[in-house]
Amino acid sequence: MESIKKILFKPNFYDQWENVKIAGWVASNRGNKKIRFIELNDGSTVANLQLVFKGEFDFELLDSLKPGSALKVQGTLKATPNSPQPIEMNVVEILEAKKVDEDYPIQNQEIKLETLRELPHLRHRTNLFRAIMLVRSTLAQEVHKYFAFRDFFYMNSPIITSNDGEGAGETFAVSDGNIEVPFFGKGNKATLGVTGQLHGESYAIGMNKIYTFGPTFRAERSNTKRHLAEFWMIEPEIAFYNLHDVINLADDMLKVVIANTLAKNKVEIEYLDSQNPGLIAKLTHFIETPLKIIDYKEAIEELAKVKTIFENQDIKFGLDLASEHEKYLTEKIYNGPVAVINFPKDFKAFYMHQNEDGKTVAAFDLLVPGVGELIGGSQRESDYNKLLNRVNELGIDAEDLQWYLDLRRFGHMLSSGFGIGFERLVMYVTGMENIRDAIPYPRTTGNIRM
Amino acid sequence: MESIKKILFKPNFYDQWENVKIAGWVASNRGNKKIRFIELNDGSTVANLQLVFKGEFDFELLDSLKPGSALKVQGTLKATPNSPQPIEMNVVEILEAKKVDEDYPIQNQEIKLETLRELPHLRHRTNLFRAIMLVRSTLAQEVHKYFAFRDFFYMNSPIITSNDGEGAGETFAVSDGNIEVPFFGKGNKATLGVTGQLHGESYAIGMNKIYTFGPTFRAERSNTKRHLAEFWMIEPEIAFYNLHDVINLADDMLKVVIANTLAKNKVEIEYLDSQNPGLIAKLTHFIETPLKIIDYKEAIEELAKVKTIFENQDIKFGLDLASEHEKYLTEKIYNGPVAVINFPKDFKAFYMHQNEDGKTVAAFDLLVPGVGELIGGSQRESDYNKLLNRVNELGIDAEDLQWYLDLRRFGHMLSSGFGIGFERLVMYVTGMENIRDAIPYPRTTGNIRM
Repeated sequence: MESIKKILFKPNFYDQWENVKIAGWVASNRGNKKIRFIELNDGSTVANLQLVFKGEFDFELLDSLKPGSALKVQGTLKATPNSPQPIEMNVVEILEAKKVDEDYPIQNQEIKLETLRELPHLRHRTNLFRAIMLVRSTLAQEVHKYFAFRDFFYMNSPIITSNDGEGAGETFAVSDGNIEVPFFGKGNKATLGVTGQLHGESYAIGMNKIYTFGPTFRAERSNTKRHLAEFWMIEPEIAFYNLHDVINLADDMLKVVIANTLAKNKVEIEYLDSQNPGLIAKLTHFIETPLKIIDYKEAIEELAKVKTIFENQDIKFGLDLASEHEKYLTEKIYNGPVAVINFPKDFKAFYMHQNEDGKTVAAFDLLVPGVGELIGGSQRESDYNKLLNRVNELGIDAEDLQWYLDLRRFGHMLSSGFGIGFERLVMYVTGMENIRDAIPYPRTTGNIRM
Repeated sequence: MESIKKILFKPNFYDQWENVKIAGWVASNRGNKKIRFIELNDGSTVANLQLVFKGEFDFELLDSLKPGSALKVQGTLKATPNSPQPIEMNVVEILEAKKVDEDYPIQNQEIKLETLRELPHLRHRTNLFRAIMLVRSTLAQEVHKYFAFRDFFYMNSPIITSNDGEGAGETFAVSDGNIEVPFFGKGNKATLGVTGQLHGESYAIGMNKIYTFGPTFRAERSNTKRHLAEFWMIEPEIAFYNLHDVINLADDMLKVVIANTLAKNKVEIEYLDSQNPGLIAKLTHFIETPLKIIDYKEAIEELAKVKTIFENQDIKFGLDLASEHEKYLTEKIYNGPVAVINFPKDFKAFYMHQNEDGKTVAAFDLLVPGVGELIGGSQRESDYNKLLNRVNELGIDAEDLQWYLDLRRFGHMLSSGFGIGFERLVMYVTGMENIRDAIPYPRTTGNIRM
């Protein structure tokens, strides 16, 4: 069986034009009792293949194949250089057909996003979600390819953990229902991980270059367009890398992965651009614009110059940049991707490398036009005593983290890493504004459909 | 910075022999106050690079670098065709060093597996676990590569779900601690998924060829060598594929992925073979031997002929093959990989395609020498009424599964898939016998270290 993507867009690789078998789902069906045109989609691309039925066919059956019906045919391909699609198929034989029931909910392309969110098991059968999800899949595969090609170790940090990462996030507890004798042992916490970073660091020390790519969880009871209870994170961690090394890696990874996705899903991105004009221009600009690196202090100075335009105008050293500030920096001042570095330690995590000024840490936020913060990362504190002091200062339970602290006594010379929320990346590349539309089955408070 | 893997095993790609920088961890350290030999490992391979220090060096510092210390140096590479490693480095300058504390637990290679399981944050710094984990990472990356190359959609099935798959497994419940107002809404179950298959099927109908690769969970309170509470599963699902199509896919995927891993991790597999003689022969035999497909009835007949050798001798139609039977089939009777098909429906899952005999389902188990069952899969039942009847017969709550049943009314002409426990695959390829040694941070009942 051939894929429609290959037939339509790789005709050079496609040398058999007769007796071609194809199977998929009916997108549209028009014509009469003598000739019928069925647009077929097989999920390989957002584009459809036009099937032409002319001659001896069961036109009553063909008439009954509403959108969503499954259909398998055999036929001859025909070049149609003057049509929207370069190739169509003259069907010779209907091999198999299965009708849809009349209450099939995806009857047209005009369904609201809110309605489609109630149908996560079906919404990928609209053009929009087919395009989004194809892009999502390619992005994920390109991330693995990027790291595999560079000999990174793919690390599976544990999902169920007794460590809650930054100690700040709300966590989900895991239990098999037996409270008397907990599954993982008396006195042991068992929660869903909010980050794979700490375990990732343990593997970077010894494996050198690692990345995680797995699900992480936050039990935050807020309903925003940018938060999920369950989301996928990519977290590289590299021994012997300092802050600038890891910023360059983040920038390069983003650009390579996005550029390859644009190439592989050209038709899907064009479709998304038609829904959200300017998308391709935005992504191309991002890929082509060198990253700027600026100090947090410099960012504050720039923002202070125009402070009156912001809601939060208390712009001075110590301000945790809000979304409005981040967007202004990347969109107005620098007009391109920008990494802000060396933040005040007060609003950053305990494990970040403490700079010599005693006030800031070697952290970075990578900001991009249209989204704001896409990536956060840092050089890690390698000094056991400095790290322990910070843990105590913040009132974090050092006992639970002893294994992590010990890495500093056992060969942790230098290490840096970053985290990127995968659904945020999907939103950025597809232009979707609600994170619920960037993952097949979104989980948020009050919502666990299917 | 260069990797030791590249220096040692890809010298053709490596053209700079002077001013080479390398960083890693000390594996061994011998010599005297005039000349010193340090074996360095950087995690890129199980092999070490020998560093030679001769001349003006801080030999007291060098003396203090016990195994596990981090070291970064610059030097000149030198071909050593008569040594165990083809290349060594004459160090010109020590760039940075960080000693380990004396209680570093990985002092030698003779530590028991049981002891190392207490140290999941450090055990990858032994040769054995470095080799195992490098193979694990390559296997995972090759799985993604295999499917990406064939235009499969990478599906992220939800982890937290209100569906418990086969309805049989013990599940973990997820909660943020608020029992009055549950996080995911009143009356909604929220458990960790035991399979991604049902959600995967929903995407196969529309996307055609999909695969999942993510964590799955079982709250079984048994301590065996083959079970984890948290493990990774690969679950492809392909629309328009029948049982034989999907068996061929499973066979091809396994052979390609294993062959590529043997090539990429030659040194690691050789190391594992030295620990477990016969490993390479076993894997090579598997790759080179065509898959046999036999009917369950035929398997029963063959086993009945030699029934006296088994513990369970009640060998007749209806027997759920035990491990001893599976191993005998693949190791003694067929001496190679074998897919047993068409099992009695009574011990198989509700969603499997019901054969016309009314007794069996279109399922397969793929058995391999040395392990037994590695993969299980089936053609799915596409007929709404047949599926609903089976659900009712088994007393499964149809209401929770309505969305899944509905797929059969909405274009589910034909679909097949299989599942492979990724850690089982890692065990098979590394020769390890305890599944706790096939994943970085194993989770079992009573154990949630770090």
